[in-house]
Amino acid sequence: MSDPLRLGIAGLGTVGAGVVKIVRQKAALLSARAGREITISAVSARSRDKDRGVPLNDYAWEDDPVALAKRDDIDVFVELVGGEDGPAKDAVEAALTSGKDVITANKAMLAMHGHALAELAEAQGRVIRFEAAVAGGIPVIKALTEGLAGNDITRIMGVMNGSCNYILTRMESAGLTYEEVFAEADGLGYLEADPQLDVGGIDAAHKLALLSSIAFGTQVNFAGIALEGIENVTIEDIKHAADMGFKIKLLGSTQMTARGLEQSMAPCLVPATSPLGQLDGGTNMIVLEGDQVGQIVLRGPGAGEGPTASAVLSDVVDLARGIRLPVFGQPCANLVAAKVASAAKPAPYYLRMALQDKPGALAKVATALGDAGVSIDRMRQYDHSEPTAPVLIVTHTVSSDALAKALSALPGTGVVTGTPVALRIEQV
Amino acid sequence: MSDPLRLGIAGLGTVGAGVVKIVRQKAALLSARAGREITISAVSARSRDKDRGVPLNDYAWEDDPVALAKRDDIDVFVELVGGEDGPAKDAVEAALTSGKDVITANKAMLAMHGHALAELAEAQGRVIRFEAAVAGGIPVIKALTEGLAGNDITRIMGVMNGSCNYILTRMESAGLTYEEVFAEADGLGYLEADPQLDVGGIDAAHKLALLSSIAFGTQVNFAGIALEGIENVTIEDIKHAADMGFKIKLLGSTQMTARGLEQSMAPCLVPATSPLGQLDGGTNMIVLEGDQVGQIVLRGPGAGEGPTASAVLSDVVDLARGIRLPVFGQPCANLVAAKVASAAKPAPYYLRMALQDKPGALAKVATALGDAGVSIDRMRQYDHSEPTAPVLIVTHTVSSDALAKALSALPGTGVVTGTPVALRIEQV
Repeated sequence: MSDPLRLGIAGLGTVGAGVVKIVRQKAALLSARAGREITISAVSARSRDKDRGVPLNDYAWEDDPVALAKRDDIDVFVELVGGEDGPAKDAVEAALTSGKDVITANKAMLAMHGHALAELAEAQGRVIRFEAAVAGGIPVIKALTEGLAGNDITRIMGVMNGSCNYILTRMESAGLTYEEVFAEADGLGYLEADPQLDVGGIDAAHKLALLSSIAFGTQVNFAGIALEGIENVTIEDIKHAADMGFKIKLLGSTQMTARGLEQSMAPCLVPATSPLGQLDGGTNMIVLEGDQVGQIVLRGPGAGEGPTASAVLSDVVDLARGIRLPVFGQPCANLVAAKVASAAKPAPYYLRMALQDKPGALAKVATALGDAGVSIDRMRQYDHSEPTAPVLIVTHTVSSDALAKALSALPGTGVVTGTPVALRIEQV
Repeated sequence: MSDPLRLGIAGLGTVGAGVVKIVRQKAALLSARAGREITISAVSARSRDKDRGVPLNDYAWEDDPVALAKRDDIDVFVELVGGEDGPAKDAVEAALTSGKDVITANKAMLAMHGHALAELAEAQGRVIRFEAAVAGGIPVIKALTEGLAGNDITRIMGVMNGSCNYILTRMESAGLTYEEVFAEADGLGYLEADPQLDVGGIDAAHKLALLSSIAFGTQVNFAGIALEGIENVTIEDIKHAADMGFKIKLLGSTQMTARGLEQSMAPCLVPATSPLGQLDGGTNMIVLEGDQVGQIVLRGPGAGEGPTASAVLSDVVDLARGIRLPVFGQPCANLVAAKVASAAKPAPYYLRMALQDKPGALAKVATALGDAGVSIDRMRQYDHSEPTAPVLIVTHTVSSDALAKALSALPGTGVVTGTPVALRIEQV
């Protein structure tokens, strides 16, 4: 049996403490699977005295993650500090330059600096592994990078932020407003310290950017994601969508098109009967589509101590087994700076608007849409007590240009009050 | 860049031809991902002259797969011949003893001879990879062996034979009998040459045996699977189950219990709203449960040229990348001969019986069940035109002993006609 694989773990929050627990409790199982012992040499966190439910006396302590990263008695630096810059990035760079491999759950850091870090790792002959950074316990990085390596990936979609999915499904099941459920989720500790990372779609978009890079051989491009959070999703839209057989999800989607790389993270309608439509609560789901395999759906817990630690351990065992791949599945020199698609792909849309109760109002709306090249699949006007009537329209597939033209023409009809809501309908 | 990885492919049916196509058409993508070229040196099949939709002139031809396996100009022997013994096994053994790695889609061979072949591979310092042997395009072997390596696996369940799932869902959607849909599926070419492999549950059980070995560190034990096919599932049971909120699936289940390794492949009821319950048609689904990760659900195409070739290519790229693991995830010496569980785990059951139209008949049945220790959760008696009334019972969780006792007591009540049907209800 080879020498032990020696870990240095920076960050001892729930995930870090979870990793320590598993390494301690499953030593025999892990070494049977890995073919060598897995040990912890040193750890680092902000406070040394905090009780983390696991003994740390056996390990050297470093106050500074950078010092931990440079220690001679570790082979792998496990970064669970978080944050796109600062100590996390400093420590990862220090680890790589001092000849350590890196395992991280830090999607923000990789989404912003992934390509540069991959270049540094490659120059140093080291690897960075990040299974825990995307979709928690679901082994999606492995499935995509290795399991589907024989495919041209055609599209990836997914629900990658459990907190947003919790909020949206809870709004529907309890009939509550966004604000009510947001307060509830925040009180339950379901949201990041900066909730905007969750509800603004940023956290999910970080993950999507990493998947895109592996799927399409492109440099990570977070800035190229068309990003919209769930803050403006109303309980009315959720109810109306349900009436028409849809669910509203914060849906990530990435594909390489003739117009360039098209990445979007935005509230979308999906068929209620589709796997994505049936996904309730905090669970994550990733849909991987390849030209050979067709569609693979992966579903599982997207966060939490056990699932995230499970993903970290999968990277640990991989490294112990000698599995070493380029960070994004190909050497950095192969990764191209993808052109960002100038316009979203044609799609059907869900439109909701408040229509004034005047004769011919509906005809005016229909005419404005038709003039813009937007054809109507279904339309519903609801009973109403207010002076305006809610009108729902499901369009046929339209270009984003035609949609924009239609939306800008609607105020000119003189019968639409306020700003119409437009949500893409994703075919899944 | 390293030397090319040179393949010898035996068996040029749809999957073999599909693999050849991908290696030819995606040469650039594959070498970018693998870090080296992937080439084909030689192929073998029964008939040289058949048009397989892909040119084979570039490759040496062998009539005999064993001769192919021994060639000096291949690094990896890809076995797509099939059959648990005979040429497939001979050629795999020849490949291993002559220093080649093996990739195979042959679940039958591995289910029967997997441990011996793994020992041979290990003695020769070679590996056997078999992603394509289980659940087609779903990268479940990788997810289990590598992605969940930090978990004690607690249970695996799944629908692993698309033909059976097609038959069962088609019976329900079209209201047809088993015999009618069987004939239809056979006519469409959905079934194996020996349909018993499909409908008898054997093919699915082969797959389950392989998953068990990886999950629990046990020697492959196909004979230890409690096996029952779908031949006796009636359209009445499907309808009654649906009425009570369930679907009937040919469900594989494996778990390590205090009573031993419990593997079963049998028609079961699952909640209609569960991911397994919602699985229609020929799609496969595997549910992996680990003590850390919780539940991971993988869904995708279980058969067909593209999906199966995708799985073969994932193994090819892994080997090209230098990913080499023990066949069942641990050295053979670690794999224990598991004790087979003597009795099935306690579970709720669905019972259907034909009750004679006599006063007090239902009370007699209820008494017989109660005396055997089987308590009733729900009971329904249906309208009937025949002299007997269909009675459905959903039990609370009962031991398999109590169930057996109850089933053997029912004829003695004098009010039950024929043999009652009992199907396990799986909590998913």
